[in-house]
Amino acid sequence: MTAPVLILVESQLAENIGSAARAMANCGLTELRLVRPDVEWPSERAAAVSSGALPLIDVRIFDTTAAALADLNYVLATTARARDMVKPVLTPRAGATEIRRRDALGQKCGLLFGPERTGLFNEDLTLADALLTVPLNPAFTSLNLAQAVLLIGYEWWTQGLDTPPVQARYGDSQPATKAELINLFEQMEKKLDSAGFFAASHMRPTMVQNIRNTLQRAEMTEQEVRTFHGIVTALVKE
Amino acid sequence: MTAPVLILVESQLAENIGSAARAMANCGLTELRLVRPDVEWPSERAAAVSSGALPLIDVRIFDTTAAALADLNYVLATTARARDMVKPVLTPRAGATEIRRRDALGQKCGLLFGPERTGLFNEDLTLADALLTVPLNPAFTSLNLAQAVLLIGYEWWTQGLDTPPVQARYGDSQPATKAELINLFEQMEKKLDSAGFFAASHMRPTMVQNIRNTLQRAEMTEQEVRTFHGIVTALVKE
Repeated sequence: MTAPVLILVESQLAENIGSAARAMANCGLTELRLVRPDVEWPSERAAAVSSGALPLIDVRIFDTTAAALADLNYVLATTARARDMVKPVLTPRAGATEIRRRDALGQKCGLLFGPERTGLFNEDLTLADALLTVPLNPAFTSLNLAQAVLLIGYEWWTQGLDTPPVQARYGDSQPATKAELINLFEQMEKKLDSAGFFAASHMRPTMVQNIRNTLQRAEMTEQEVRTFHGIVTALVKE
Repeated sequence: MTAPVLILVESQLAENIGSAARAMANCGLTELRLVRPDVEWPSERAAAVSSGALPLIDVRIFDTTAAALADLNYVLATTARARDMVKPVLTPRAGATEIRRRDALGQKCGLLFGPERTGLFNEDLTLADALLTVPLNPAFTSLNLAQAVLLIGYEWWTQGLDTPPVQARYGDSQPATKAELINLFEQMEKKLDSAGFFAASHMRPTMVQNIRNTLQRAEMTEQEVRTFHGIVTALVKE
């Protein structure tokens, strides 16, 4: 799996290049191409802002967008707003899927970003295969370069993961078995009987059911079951 | 649909609160609760960094995390690393789904973030229903507060959208009909015949097929078909 190349056209602030590099490193992107950067390069300011990311990134400078894209097969151009261009517009998620699909076919892909103030020039957009727009709150769309890189990179990165959506963590213990849990229920109910907790005996089955359901939902570990045995014992009046 | 409340515990930099507010506005979050902020409040610095977002956000200050969470039903605590806690760990996507599911049931949900340097204290984590961890590049996990807010907010925001993954844009024109396209093919092939382009006549069917496939893939609009008629006419030697 090869990460897409990031191409920044006429970046105006070293700080933005540094924070874009940081977002790249967060998301496993390693190739950065700067077209006519409007900042001195290399830049100490960019390095400082990158929080150690810049040394991990391969940075190259180009005179033209065409040269920066020359070896690529598929390029997505990011735009903040609709442009009068006949070109498909992809969400970051769909774009990441398309890049991964093409990478699997051996195609080299790129993500093209324009100058902070103006966005990409039309002649650069024309060189892209599709447009990519982050669908954020239309009432507040101000998104800086690094944030756009982060969101698009995040979509690319997470599509390569097999992180389970929900992971259970049990610390040093194991989830309790049903036998351990039933034993806790029975011990507890026995002590509650002795303590006269179930005063209205016809309500006992419902109350037992509710207490068991409550503790069942807690999905206790073996250790936690032992702790609750201790709690019950401690509370029993001698 | 009610957006989740963002709770920041002991934030150390006004800049971070401002950029978190900006990320909130990007993602349609409107309630911010600050627990013992380590900055003067209100903060001009935070307002400046928020790029106009802060006035859109309802900000309240609390003395304790418990008070800040008091009216909430379900809280996800963000952690950068595994903690020794028996608690489910969700991805931002799964967390966003869970928040939307609970919101539909009338539950009020929150996203809890800790101090920048230390992350959440264990006693605050204990008040949360589940942990939420952004699965970024393990080789470079440095992610600031606002970036974490942005990624988690983005997952919540985009799950409420019905943005098609791929949108076709046709500008002022309409996609060409097959009749218009076939007419272009035929006109073009007729002129190529006259120009002697298909020198090896047994190859003509394959070449026609390839040219038609190429132009077919361009998914031309009506206007573009007319332009290509003009191109062919212009290129024909008188």
